[in-house]
Amino acid sequence: VGRAVQARLDLKTKPRGSLGGLERLAVRIACIQRSESPALGTPVVIVCAADHGVAAEGVSAYPSSVTAQMVANYAAGGAAVSVLARHAGARLVVVDCGVAEPLAVPGVLDRRIGPGTASMLRGAAMSRAQAIQALETGIALAKEQLGEARVVALGEMGIGNSTSAAALTCALTGADPAVACGRGTGLDDEGLARKVAVVARALERNGLTPGAPSLTPRAPSLTPRAPFDGDAVGILAAVGGFELGVLAGIALGAAGRNVPVLIDGYPASAAVLVAAALAPELPGSLIAAHRSSEPGHRIVLEALGLQPLLDFELRLGEGSGAALALPLLAAALKILDEMATFEAAGVDDSGR
Amino acid sequence: VGRAVQARLDLKTKPRGSLGGLERLAVRIACIQRSESPALGTPVVIVCAADHGVAAEGVSAYPSSVTAQMVANYAAGGAAVSVLARHAGARLVVVDCGVAEPLAVPGVLDRRIGPGTASMLRGAAMSRAQAIQALETGIALAKEQLGEARVVALGEMGIGNSTSAAALTCALTGADPAVACGRGTGLDDEGLARKVAVVARALERNGLTPGAPSLTPRAPSLTPRAPFDGDAVGILAAVGGFELGVLAGIALGAAGRNVPVLIDGYPASAAVLVAAALAPELPGSLIAAHRSSEPGHRIVLEALGLQPLLDFELRLGEGSGAALALPLLAAALKILDEMATFEAAGVDDSGR
Repeated sequence: VGRAVQARLDLKTKPRGSLGGLERLAVRIACIQRSESPALGTPVVIVCAADHGVAAEGVSAYPSSVTAQMVANYAAGGAAVSVLARHAGARLVVVDCGVAEPLAVPGVLDRRIGPGTASMLRGAAMSRAQAIQALETGIALAKEQLGEARVVALGEMGIGNSTSAAALTCALTGADPAVACGRGTGLDDEGLARKVAVVARALERNGLTPGAPSLTPRAPSLTPRAPFDGDAVGILAAVGGFELGVLAGIALGAAGRNVPVLIDGYPASAAVLVAAALAPELPGSLIAAHRSSEPGHRIVLEALGLQPLLDFELRLGEGSGAALALPLLAAALKILDEMATFEAAGVDDSGR
Repeated sequence: VGRAVQARLDLKTKPRGSLGGLERLAVRIACIQRSESPALGTPVVIVCAADHGVAAEGVSAYPSSVTAQMVANYAAGGAAVSVLARHAGARLVVVDCGVAEPLAVPGVLDRRIGPGTASMLRGAAMSRAQAIQALETGIALAKEQLGEARVVALGEMGIGNSTSAAALTCALTGADPAVACGRGTGLDDEGLARKVAVVARALERNGLTPGAPSLTPRAPSLTPRAPFDGDAVGILAAVGGFELGVLAGIALGAAGRNVPVLIDGYPASAAVLVAAALAPELPGSLIAAHRSSEPGHRIVLEALGLQPLLDFELRLGEGSGAALALPLLAAALKILDEMATFEAAGVDDSGR
């Protein structure tokens, strides 16, 4: 499929390969969709939200109550992802995967696994059964929500979830907490040091320090060339989040339907890293929307073997970067569909 | 203006600065437009085309006849820039600034300075009077074509014009021809070596080697901090092109009307470098759409003090990269216009 699409691109009125990344993007979408006529349909942006017990440990600049407030904001159309999804002509789906207090907001899907996770400092964030339920919920959401959409963009909201993302990244790639932790939505130096210590203690508390049985083989272990063969579900249960588990499931479900998965910032990417640990072929279905200013995001993108489309120093999450990148995907496919060939346009292509 | 717009962004439901480059882009557009309510209107993409005498020296993979063929393709809607301008909701304006054989293509503006330039290897590419005519033509085009548009994207077409861009870059920044020349639309190693030699000889033939009177002060001379005070019009006449002179004029005209100038690849950026040599405050009105795979493009962007929005390894020109970036500008302004404030959305902003 890739070769056929590149051959079509090579007939267009431009020197071969001169649209660089835009041509590669068109080929990638075609390969994921297994179609020589790739299309986006109406893109779907799915934002999964849940609360994190670890937020009580002072790892975020915002209180947990903001998770629910922002979910209402997504549904009302006032958040960044609301604006950017509209701009991209995408449908926004907001999912409550376990916000602390149940929401009564119209338009938010109720897929609650529990009232927020437990603190990973005191044991596993969730039970193994809940981790599996989160994954299955995501797989079911992909089946139910994608409809005619041929691309899905993943976003998240959950105060404290960049701490969970860092812990997942450390457990799955062997990265050091000091490298995997960033300022999230706005920590100062002291807050950042606290976050690093919390992640290190959480990993230890859950038996996820290097050499632990669940982590075989050791770091950096998850690459497209060296699939992870540790206990990814156990890691998700220990230091993950409900919304991250659901996102991992959506990625698996979408990939299984040949739908490209456009991933956003650090938490969404770490969620997909869990999915990739379960399904080593998953990275072939992913497109990285951007590289955020979170240092750990780079680690995850490298582990997944992905080159991001944008480098805008975003650090908001909620799928904002993925929604921002959607028009680039649409542009790549329009190049394939709408450009004239040398022959049709009467342009001399002897120079090729 | 910038402070007022940033203050508005800081009230939106997101941690301060968390949309990184997107926020900076909104602020920049507002500052250029000198308006706290920046807007794009219907963007205009202007593609200027002309032929180059130097094309006969074997510096391009394509023959000069392709310039005219592609102009017809732009007007017919089949070229990359046609597709991407449509995708961005922009109006495409195609200008014949001096294609070798006059075109009879409906929808192409006739602003011919001459039937292609002379070879810069045998003297100046054009007369000083023609260089001034090109600049004035561009300034007039900005006045006449921008209308209600609040942003203009610049593109070019001209077989041989990346050689002209390299010579302009060397003359204006003191860069070495070996660094300023790239493969253009598809030269092999031998062709690239020939191009480097042609640029070096053209600079020498026109008295533009380092130390020449027209080049005071010496390289690298053109930066936002050290304005060029050599003879930029003479340099444009010696090694420029008709379409590049017109583009320089459009940039000057647009900036004078507080309209942001979105620049594309190497030739368009080198054209704007000429304009910046004439008007040292011009870079403040520029936005770089992307960094192309032409090595000299990086030199020009650095001389102009610009950070590109995209890094897609494009090397097509014709305004394709600028058109591709337009939806990012629109997204930045929608963030400013459409996002809810913390207060309006009832979101706790104590964390800021």
